[in-house]
Formats: sequence, structure tokens, C-alpha cells
Amino acid sequence: MALKVCKFGGTSLASAEQFRKVATIALADDDRKIVVVSAPGKRNKPDTKVTDLLIAFAEAKLGGSGAEAVQQSILDRFAGIIEGLELPREEFETIATLLKSRGEGNRNHRARYIDSIKALGEEFSARLLAAFLRKEGHDFIYVDPKEAGLVLSDEPGNAQVLPESYELLRPLRDSAHRIIFPGFYGYAKNGNLVAFPRGGSDITGAILAAAVHADVYENFTDVDNVFAADPRIVEKPAAIHEMTYAEMRELSYAGFSVLHDEALQPAFNAKIPVHIRNTNNPESRGTLISLERSNHELPVVGVAGSSDFCAIFLSKYLMNREKGFGRRLLQIIEDADLSYEHTPSGIDHISVIIKESTFTPEVEKQVLERIRTELQPDKLIVQRGIALIMIVGDGMSKQIGVAKRATGALSDHGVNLEMINQGASESSIMFGIQSGDMNKAIVALHDAFFNT
Amino acid sequence: MALKVCKFGGTSLASAEQFRKVATIALADDDRKIVVVSAPGKRNKPDTKVTDLLIAFAEAKLGGSGAEAVQQSILDRFAGIIEGLELPREEFETIATLLKSRGEGNRNHRARYIDSIKALGEEFSARLLAAFLRKEGHDFIYVDPKEAGLVLSDEPGNAQVLPESYELLRPLRDSAHRIIFPGFYGYAKNGNLVAFPRGGSDITGAILAAAVHADVYENFTDVDNVFAADPRIVEKPAAIHEMTYAEMRELSYAGFSVLHDEALQPAFNAKIPVHIRNTNNPESRGTLISLERSNHELPVVGVAGSSDFCAIFLSKYLMNREKGFGRRLLQIIEDADLSYEHTPSGIDHISVIIKESTFTPEVEKQVLERIRTELQPDKLIVQRGIALIMIVGDGMSKQIGVAKRATGALSDHGVNLEMINQGASESSIMFGIQSGDMNKAIVALHDAFFNT
Repeated sequence: MALKVCKFGGTSLASAEQFRKVATIALADDDRKIVVVSAPGKRNKPDTKVTDLLIAFAEAKLGGSGAEAVQQSILDRFAGIIEGLELPREEFETIATLLKSRGEGNRNHRARYIDSIKALGEEFSARLLAAFLRKEGHDFIYVDPKEAGLVLSDEPGNAQVLPESYELLRPLRDSAHRIIFPGFYGYAKNGNLVAFPRGGSDITGAILAAAVHADVYENFTDVDNVFAADPRIVEKPAAIHEMTYAEMRELSYAGFSVLHDEALQPAFNAKIPVHIRNTNNPESRGTLISLERSNHELPVVGVAGSSDFCAIFLSKYLMNREKGFGRRLLQIIEDADLSYEHTPSGIDHISVIIKESTFTPEVEKQVLERIRTELQPDKLIVQRGIALIMIVGDGMSKQIGVAKRATGALSDHGVNLEMINQGASESSIMFGIQSGDMNKAIVALHDAFFNT
Repeated sequence: MALKVCKFGGTSLASAEQFRKVATIALADDDRKIVVVSAPGKRNKPDTKVTDLLIAFAEAKLGGSGAEAVQQSILDRFAGIIEGLELPREEFETIATLLKSRGEGNRNHRARYIDSIKALGEEFSARLLAAFLRKEGHDFIYVDPKEAGLVLSDEPGNAQVLPESYELLRPLRDSAHRIIFPGFYGYAKNGNLVAFPRGGSDITGAILAAAVHADVYENFTDVDNVFAADPRIVEKPAAIHEMTYAEMRELSYAGFSVLHDEALQPAFNAKIPVHIRNTNNPESRGTLISLERSNHELPVVGVAGSSDFCAIFLSKYLMNREKGFGRRLLQIIEDADLSYEHTPSGIDHISVIIKESTFTPEVEKQVLERIRTELQPDKLIVQRGIALIMIVGDGMSKQIGVAKRATGALSDHGVNLEMINQGASESSIMFGIQSGDMNKAIVALHDAFFNT
């Protein structure tokens, strides 16, 4: 018998109807032993996520006004779900009591207090799903992260899993019952509740999958699969049914918003396949993300872009004879607490590409001043408004003609290439272009590789 | 009246017949006020350059045997030139006396002694050319670099010009006579003769051109012009009649052997155009190298390659979050006294490209060990046998379709691209390929841009 850990995102638990879908999916496969849940998300576009309501509630309690109204909204959301699931009135009482008492908790440490409140969304989701499944006659229990041993660093809102958690959580594998586990939070060694950063429920699921050596980590969301490009930019982008961890990571970095690749890291590290699936269409094939993919016909699995970049360009005659030039340049960047993305270079030129948002006018002034003084370039220019486009595909460097197709498509659509970067053994090619050309470039590249 | 500095290379002075060509060229234009000469070069393929004979003579004197025979070969070469130029017998006596007395000089400092001997080739060339022109009734004088003020750093075989030389040499501009100046050497402040590194006569000409503010530096060699690719690789490569300093430099770096770009640096710095011309075909248009070129139709002026490269490839999950990762890697490279060429990178990967000849097994062991210990990469691979191909052209980054043509040509010829590097505002694109594909790639790229 295989062992599966499933995680359901916020839209999968937005309403009683969605809860029922989750229950159906959980019950459809006896291997789904551990189910991780998010807080109820949006039911429709103008709706508010329960987590955001909880944060607003916490802020109101901290600020001193409006808390009552927000509290009522939160309770209304859960009342609706409880009613729709035909759960007994006591379930609501439990939730209302927990919310009120937690709201009266210690408010001395602002971030810690907010964590303690916002984590209630996941806790309530998990409690209600377990109650519903039990009511329907199935052996599911709610498991508390503290009791289970999900031990995190004591960093409110930005907690990291501690290595001992994996050993502590392992016995869940042999639990006599099937488990409903709240995502997004755990406990520091001092007993404080602490929440993960964004993508927190994905992290919880990935940690559990790794701890119990799951055969697969099923990540249920609201899309049928990962697409080869952003559907907001490309009309009907190609569906991608298989990709590797490395490809996922490159795409996530390049602007893909389906998943936080870092959230999945515990599963990747443990080499557990991650299966992206759709709660609203569980029959669809989904996207399987694993160490290697079986289908090698696709040289490229995705195209993504991000437009918030700028380049510091330096030229200096005989730069390549000056040992340490590049290293000293990167030291200046590092001293300014900047991260850089790439450093494409020629014989007498080097560009350092950084996120434009981090390169404020003050930082720019200070960095350029040091570069001028310490490196004495002949030319020093800052180019703003750069977009980086990546095409991603494992082993593309072993396939002839990928660069040709990509540069041909960009040229045919009138996109001027300012920079190109492809490193040895890499699974991506990066193109630097003007921000204004970004969407045109993504469409051109998607069509070149997927509409053939 | 314009002022021109001309320099003639070794093949231009290989025989009396060549000396006469040089004299004719010098006399054809009154603006050619300063003529810099190399030592007599090869008359034919199996011949030996006078400079190599002089070095062999110095080595024999230092080693103690065979000096007589080499001395005779040297004197024979000059006897032939003197006879062919119908110069009086005294010219030969002067040369023979100078060679013998210099041969008996101080041999305590080996490199210094070799410099003092090998510089005689240029000195004799200059003395004989001046004597010939005077005999023919023209007002040319031989100028000694020491008297003229060509002051160099005291580094035998690798001397560098000292800044004061430019002021000291400037009065040559107003000399009452036209000047023949020996290339390749000057004098240290302590009075010692010291020679430039390779390309030394080109350096002397460039320094003189800068010192006297010449309108052009005419560099006479034995080719009609610079070619768009190496004629040993590409059959009938395109002739390039105009290029910029930056383009010349990129091509020279990438493997072009026509000129040493560093030798021309003094002229480039002073913004003096360098005109490459052919002594054997002075009517040909040549190649004008200057700050900017007037012809902007050619996006690419040349294709060159070099095959002595290897890449250190590292991958590490979340590398881009580790501030200072790239800088620490370059520090390790620098500590091993290695220069690197490029560092193409992806999100979790970086490659450092270095000259393979400098990356010996011992250096490799030490560098990889430090990388493993200090950077803990997930993967660390050294790829050897890499060729770097460059296509060069100012402003190519502003022209759409250059990358398309290049990658298309490579793909169509079955060349797999391992790396691509094009930085912002650059005048080149670099392609990393397998060494075995180098010539094929150069032919493909040349044909793509020049046979259209």
C-alpha cells in the first residue's frame, strides 16, 4: 500500500461545497492518509480570504477598534460552512470560543500575536473537515501540530522548520487513524505558535510528505495543471503534465506564480514526487513534478518573465587583465546588501543585473560612487526597465536548435535582445529585453515551442 | 599638412627588395615623417627571422658554444641587404663591429643581455633604411630611442612605456629631418636597454603616433586588410575595411592574430586612427581602425574562436539566495591566481570559464577542494575541451535579428550550443561549444553574416 500526503489550498476549502469536494477526494483513495488544509480562501473574486480577515481582526485588537465587526465576519464564514456541512451547533461554539479567547491573548509581542490569530483559519478548517468526515462515518482525526511535533524556529511570520521535526513527525505514518492536519503553522521550542512565511500550507504538506516518506505529495489547487506560460499573457497556453524540480524552480523564479518552489523544498530534498491537481476537476491529469521526467520530447516546458530588473553596465579597457575586477565589483554589490541575478560579460564589459526595486536612488548613488572610486571604469551606466525572460527545459543545452528557435521567434516579433545568458549544463536560457516588449516576447516564445 | 607615423613589420624588411618597397612607400607621401621599422623577418616559410637568430646568438654566448656560426648567419643576412641596396662597405663594418662588441657585453644578467642583443635587429634595419634613403638623396636620419627619450620600465623582455616618454618624444614632431626609428626597444632610467614584449615594434609606432599627435598611424604588414575570419579556417573570408578599436580588441581577444590589440593601445588612448596596410600592395584599401566607424551596415565585422577553455560548473539549490556566493567563488579563482573569462549563470547554477592551459591538474585539485569545502555545491563538474566563438560588431545589441542569424547558422550546421553570453550594450556575442566543432562553427557564422 502506498502512502500519500495531500494538501488542499484555500479555494478548495472556501465553502461547504468545496469541503465536500475535498472529503470526496480524500475518500476516493485509501492511500491518502494525511490531509493538510489551508484556511478557507475566496469564494469569488470580491470575497476576502479568512486569513486576511483574521489578520484584520488581530490588527483591530492591537489598534483598538473595529474588532467586533471583523470577528462577526469570521464567525459568519464558518457558520456558513458548518451549516452547509450539517455539522452540530457545538462545532460553531468551539470555534467562536477559540477565536474569542485567542483574541484576548498576550498582545505584547505584535508579530507573535498576529501569528497566533491568523493560524486559526487552518486550525478551524482542519477541525471542521475532520468533524465532517467522522460524521460521515470515516476514521479521520484532527492532529495538532504541537502534539505531532512540528517544531519551528522562533521567527513569527517567517518560521523555518527545525531538522528534528522530521523524526518527531515520522510516527504519523503508522497512526491507526487517517489524519487531518492544519497547514501554515507549528510551534517554537518555547511553546509559542509561529507561522511560516507565504505558501505556508504547501510547506506543511511538503514537510509531512518528507517525514513519513510519502510516495507522492498531492498538492490540490484550482488549476488543472501547470501551464507553459502565464494564462494572463498567453491565450490558451500549453498544458505541462510533467516537469522536474529544477524546471519548476527555474520557472518559479522567472515569474511563475502557481507554486512557491521553496515551499516544496522539503519534498524535493526527500525526492518525493509532487503532483499538482485540481480539487474542482480531480479527473484531470495534473502536473507531476519529480527528479527526472520520462517525456524528453519537449525541449522546453515553460516560458516566464519578470520585468523588475535593471543592469549596472561597466566597461573598462583591459578589464580582463585586472585580476579580481569581477570579484571586487560583486563585493561592492554585496556590501550594499543587494542580490544580483546574472553577470553577463564581454572582454571589457560586465553587467550586473539586479532587482530594480532593491536598487533605490540612494543605493544607486552609493554603489556607483564606490564603483567609480574603486574600479575606475571607462564607462558606467545604469539601464532601468529591463525584463528577464526565461525559457526553461532540462537538458536543452544538449539539444541543437533551441537557441535558434527562441532567437528566431523574438526577432520575428521585433523584440530586440539586449542580453543573452545560457550557462553550461543549464536548463534555461535567459533573455534580457526592454520591459515594454515582455508580453510580446512571452507570446512569441510560447508559440515557437508549443504551437508547432 | 598632416602628420603620419608609419610602421613596417618584419616581412616588409626581410630583404633588400622589401627595403626598397618600404623606401618607395615612405617617399610616396611627404606626410610620412616618422618611420618605425622591425628587424628583417622571414623571406620565405623555412627562413628564420633575424630576431630569432639574434636570440640564438645570445643564448650561444651565454651557453658557450656555436655562437660563431649564428653570428655568421646574422651578418650574412645583413650583407645581402646591404649589397642589394648598393650601400657602401662601411655600413657592413659598422654592423659587424656593433654585433661583436655587443656580444662581448655584460652577461651577468641573462634577460638583460638577451634584450641588448635581440634589439640589434631593429637598430640595424633602421640604420640601413636611413642610409639607403640618404644615399638616394632624401633627408632621413636614424634616431636612437635613448636620445629621443623612449623611457621604459626596467623589465627586460617585458618593458612598459613610462608616461614621461610622451613629453620627451613630442619634439620629434618638429624635427628638421624625416625620421627612421627602430621599433621594439627603449631604455630604462638607469640607462639599460630594455625590450618590449611581443608586438614590440607595433608598440613603438603607437607610442610615437601618440607622442607627436599623428593624424594617422599607418601599420604596414603583409596582408591587404583585416579579414572577417581566419583565412586558415574560412576560404576567402570577407575583407573588413573599417572597424572600431572595441571591435578590434574583441576580435584580437577571441583569437585574431593580425595584430596585438594591446600593442596599439597608446594610439587608441590618444584616439589616433590606425590604418592597417600592405607593404606588398600599397594600393589596397587596408583596414582603418578608429573610435567609430562610418559604415553601420555591417552588424558584424568578424568571427573568431579559440579552443583552449574549460568550465567549472557548480549547481546548488537556492544558490541565488546565498548572498556573496558568486563573489566567494571568484575569490577562490583569484586566490589560485587564475583569470576567468565569463561567468554565465542561471538561478541555481554558475559556470566559470577559464583558459584550459592555466587550469592544470594541481590547480584543479586545489580549486575544487576549496569550492567543495567553502561553497558546498550540490554538483561540481569541470568541462574541458570547450571552444569560445565570438561574433563581434559594435552596436549589435541594438540590431534585431543578429542572435537569430547566428544561432540559426550554428544549429543548421549541427553545432550544439553549450553556452551563450551577451551582455548589455555589448559589441559581441559569445558562444561556448565543443572544441571539435570550432572550425565548423566559424565557417557557419562567417557565411551567415558575409555570404548573403
